[in-house]
Amino acid sequence: METPATVTPASNFLQVKAIGIDTYLENVIYMRADCHICKSEGYKALTRVVVSFRETEIVATLNVVYSELIHHNEAGLSLIAMQRLNVQNGDLIRIDHLNPVASLSLVRRKMYGNELQDADYQQIISDILKGWYSNIEVAAFITACSATDLTIAEITGLTKAMIFSGKRLNWNKEMVPDKHCVGGLPGNRTTPIVVSILAAAGLTIPKTSSKAITSPAGTADVISTFTNAALTLEQMQYVVQKENGCMAWGGGVHLSPADDLLITIEKALDVDSEGQMIASVLSKKVAAGATHVVIDIPVGETAKVRSAEEAEGIRLKMEAVATAINLKLKVVLTDGSQPVGRGIGPALEALDVLAVLRNAPASPHDLRERALFLASEMLEISGTVDPGEGKAKAAEILNSGQAYQKFLAICQAQGGFREPVAGQYTFDVVSTVAGTVQKIDNRKLARLAKLAGAPKAKGAGMLFLSPLGRRVEVGNVLFTLYAEAEGELEYAKEFLSNLNEVLVIG
Amino acid sequence: METPATVTPASNFLQVKAIGIDTYLENVIYMRADCHICKSEGYKALTRVVVSFRETEIVATLNVVYSELIHHNEAGLSLIAMQRLNVQNGDLIRIDHLNPVASLSLVRRKMYGNELQDADYQQIISDILKGWYSNIEVAAFITACSATDLTIAEITGLTKAMIFSGKRLNWNKEMVPDKHCVGGLPGNRTTPIVVSILAAAGLTIPKTSSKAITSPAGTADVISTFTNAALTLEQMQYVVQKENGCMAWGGGVHLSPADDLLITIEKALDVDSEGQMIASVLSKKVAAGATHVVIDIPVGETAKVRSAEEAEGIRLKMEAVATAINLKLKVVLTDGSQPVGRGIGPALEALDVLAVLRNAPASPHDLRERALFLASEMLEISGTVDPGEGKAKAAEILNSGQAYQKFLAICQAQGGFREPVAGQYTFDVVSTVAGTVQKIDNRKLARLAKLAGAPKAKGAGMLFLSPLGRRVEVGNVLFTLYAEAEGELEYAKEFLSNLNEVLVIG
Repeated sequence: METPATVTPASNFLQVKAIGIDTYLENVIYMRADCHICKSEGYKALTRVVVSFRETEIVATLNVVYSELIHHNEAGLSLIAMQRLNVQNGDLIRIDHLNPVASLSLVRRKMYGNELQDADYQQIISDILKGWYSNIEVAAFITACSATDLTIAEITGLTKAMIFSGKRLNWNKEMVPDKHCVGGLPGNRTTPIVVSILAAAGLTIPKTSSKAITSPAGTADVISTFTNAALTLEQMQYVVQKENGCMAWGGGVHLSPADDLLITIEKALDVDSEGQMIASVLSKKVAAGATHVVIDIPVGETAKVRSAEEAEGIRLKMEAVATAINLKLKVVLTDGSQPVGRGIGPALEALDVLAVLRNAPASPHDLRERALFLASEMLEISGTVDPGEGKAKAAEILNSGQAYQKFLAICQAQGGFREPVAGQYTFDVVSTVAGTVQKIDNRKLARLAKLAGAPKAKGAGMLFLSPLGRRVEVGNVLFTLYAEAEGELEYAKEFLSNLNEVLVIG
Repeated sequence: METPATVTPASNFLQVKAIGIDTYLENVIYMRADCHICKSEGYKALTRVVVSFRETEIVATLNVVYSELIHHNEAGLSLIAMQRLNVQNGDLIRIDHLNPVASLSLVRRKMYGNELQDADYQQIISDILKGWYSNIEVAAFITACSATDLTIAEITGLTKAMIFSGKRLNWNKEMVPDKHCVGGLPGNRTTPIVVSILAAAGLTIPKTSSKAITSPAGTADVISTFTNAALTLEQMQYVVQKENGCMAWGGGVHLSPADDLLITIEKALDVDSEGQMIASVLSKKVAAGATHVVIDIPVGETAKVRSAEEAEGIRLKMEAVATAINLKLKVVLTDGSQPVGRGIGPALEALDVLAVLRNAPASPHDLRERALFLASEMLEISGTVDPGEGKAKAAEILNSGQAYQKFLAICQAQGGFREPVAGQYTFDVVSTVAGTVQKIDNRKLARLAKLAGAPKAKGAGMLFLSPLGRRVEVGNVLFTLYAEAEGELEYAKEFLSNLNEVLVIG
């Protein structure tokens, strides 16, 4: 018996109209209210539908159009949806009912407070990657994981799921060291120094770093002031093969696409739960091919991690998860009470890094010490030197100029070295009282640097000259703001009306 | 000293372009990527901005436009945003940076598993109502409440916040009874019968009901097959004054606007946590002016509440919250193992209701008994009759035809009565085995009725003829599907390939 023709709607095809709307990572389809598909299927705004073109299908959220923005038989798509479907203006796309996404029932289990298994996380992450989740569904997953406090088994499951979801680099080495710093401390830019020391020591260190999310500078922002950081995977492999190490922007090699999606929503919600942070950090290290990892947790009242207890909790969980995924890991707790070095902002931090690498007399001692400490931990965890001998080895490489030579060679391989340039508009903030610097709010300093234009304006930020314990007199410069535009300098100056909240001098 | 002109951007005004995009309840603003405001402020897709017009301001999510959809100096707005701002094409709107929404830090506290206070819930609900939350932020709030299991104090806080957020009707009566059924059981349409009995008994019962969210029929859908349910507040007051009771669609009087917003996202996430469900139900009752409420919880394997223990838990929490908000409440647990009456779908359920009200010989006994039971509980909780005498009083009013007369009078006052009409396309599903009906899947029956077109097609659904324990022979009709279109009947028939999953005959 033939199926009656009335069962199948006459046609569920529409023609793509490129309307150029950027919804960031959310697939949105725009269909007319009086379109035959909307009418026959009863679709309303926010209905989730399957959109397909040739072999590709995505899930999109419907926005209903009550205007001549699109014509009959047309459908608009958000930029990301067009890109994911690989369609052009005029292509014929098919729109279908969405069958329930099975892994959403797992998310609901988590929303009701239950524990999930490895396979559950894999299914969820895989469906998120396919674009089957709407933003609110991703938000629900993130929140449920945050509110219920993932167990170590769950964090391990989530970490594995993220590793499986993307590429995994292979350097054909038994040992590939890496490092990561949890929670930004302004100016804490040890990476270029550490990479240079380790590469000079003959270790393979294919370092990827991120751009700023909420801070005035990410490591990748700093690197891009003196060399090209946006390497392709092939370029990265070339640089590492030639110089043992590289300093690349991780976003360029798409190592953990699922994590990128989760971070978008985490950022929008301004939430970063322990479990997700651990899974995110460790999965990225494994994906980058690292085998031996040192994690730096700065602890301080205005740092991301505020107490030693909190840091201890993170350390225990990270170590347990690392063991479960076969990663050698050491967590070190460091002082997070004040900025590191003097520069805050891409170019100003880069100038600090260069001063240390060049062994300049006035180079920031604290940045140098931190970099040596981390390099030494990495030399030791990797077994390159015996325990206790890392520091001397690292210092030797730095002091002898080998690290700086390696640094220049890496930059050369990445496309050349150039001197970073600080912003041309400056403003000295001077003390109106005499006394000693007693307290520093890292978050407020970061805010000031951002108001001055960092990280978008590479030369913007500040030189911070008032570490804890410094004796200041009336009229002494506390810090100097830098900007690339007069207007931005003024934004930062306006915020300075509450200088007491930034620095306490008593 | 004058502020330099460079500090303030030349202008943060744009002209509204009506582009007619329905995003449901989310405020979206569409701005060109090369617009001076986006460029100078660094706005990107998903940035949340404040949009203002005269005295009104809303928060909107930015979608960036890379096409000629809007011209320079123009901004598009989603329909809901235009409506909330009360702007027309061509109006000049102002776009500003969004300062952090303070109550989001409370949501984050909840996301990290902490308990919130009454004042916290009030701030959150009030900000959600102002449109200051994005959909993902509402999703995070809902999920955090679901995953952490709200305490009774918290459910009370949320309930109060929802009551304060909207209108509260006042009937100038000491006692206004109401009822609510938790979790749909197909065909459980007692409301029109109960309202008629209580109004005939002289009680004031200004009943509001909802349309179907995920079921084949909501009470308001059923009512609208025989009279007008979309009453304004004034019409509702007129009907109640004239006839003691009414049967109105709650959505028409906007009693709990915050709840409507939360339900949108809950529906999209397909989640309905205990705490939020209790707050939603009780706040709506109080907002409608009820003082004495009977809550019916059908318990059954394929009902919403699956076990007596679960129902007991809900009962205890509901009673505690009701006491805290000064509402007299009785929770009754009823059988939720199979559909009530024979009809499933708006018109077919209405026909059952009418048969009971008319004391037709073939009227469904179970629907009649349920309605009498609930009416009797309401007569007793309100003190209208002594305990134990409710049933006799309710039966007397129903049997004597007073309830039916009152029903017709209420319909008359609401705009007139008309006979409901079942769909013209039908299909008998017959048994291929002999035996006894042993198990019924309410959810699958509901699904079938929806595939046949309910609730949108008012005459669609089914007549269900196979209650538990019925002896069936090969060829006996188990149920009859009804549709208003041949195609929809076919949709339902396709689903029938797994008849065993719907009904177990053994």
